[in-house]
Amino acid sequence: MTEPYDDDNVFAKILRGEIPSHKLYEDADTYAFMDVMPQGKGHCLAITKAPCRNLLDVEAEPLAAVVATTQKLVRAVKKAFDADGVTVMQFNEPASGQTVFHLHFHVIPRFEGIPLKPHTGPMEDQGVLAANAEKIRQAMAQGS
Amino acid sequence: MTEPYDDDNVFAKILRGEIPSHKLYEDADTYAFMDVMPQGKGHCLAITKAPCRNLLDVEAEPLAAVVATTQKLVRAVKKAFDADGVTVMQFNEPASGQTVFHLHFHVIPRFEGIPLKPHTGPMEDQGVLAANAEKIRQAMAQGS
Repeated sequence: MTEPYDDDNVFAKILRGEIPSHKLYEDADTYAFMDVMPQGKGHCLAITKAPCRNLLDVEAEPLAAVVATTQKLVRAVKKAFDADGVTVMQFNEPASGQTVFHLHFHVIPRFEGIPLKPHTGPMEDQGVLAANAEKIRQAMAQGS
Repeated sequence: MTEPYDDDNVFAKILRGEIPSHKLYEDADTYAFMDVMPQGKGHCLAITKAPCRNLLDVEAEPLAAVVATTQKLVRAVKKAFDADGVTVMQFNEPASGQTVFHLHFHVIPRFEGIPLKPHTGPMEDQGVLAANAEKIRQAMAQGS
């Protein structure tokens, strides 16, 4: 049994423009922006525009769309930060670490010898987020 | 720059039947089986049949296919083990934790208060893997 979708979650508010975000990419089905509590430099998120909680309830087409956007982010952050690798994570329900109940994929650039920070850490400086967002947008524009 | 695909990786050998696996699901584009070094009870993997290293080189269609199979596993393990949640992880390059260089998604049932074990832990007992695989196959057959 999956919990119902709650339209008041923070990502729904970001999609409606009620909360600001450092936007990286948008298309008809998806949106991408910076995680404000990054587990590493350049941590960003791809979300669906469909009202879905997680992989337990999303339909096939919005799922394929958000994964395509996730892949765009993976390629872009690798290039933007000259990262050694990229970790993708997706959480379903609180026991797995899900804290916002709107389907999203975490994309985290990785660097040799630098472990991930905890999932819910301190809020990053807005200037740092803006600068990292600009690097990712430039990498996407260059067709990474 | 992405490293070239190496056809001698262990998942390519599993696809060719050169190494045994606890099979969960197969279709034209994907294959799913138990992880032999589980980070938690019921840890399983969805892989593409395409010769792809990770998200840096996979094409859109095989990516969508392997994610659809990943979703099938997420729903099945939730039901099979009455899990509280499910963690999905996908690693790109060694700095992110990738150890087998054939695109795969980790699907790990989660239970309240039980942390993930390390990524490369001890080999699980084959009887345990076989029993867990049977539970997942039954959940898939019931259309979880």
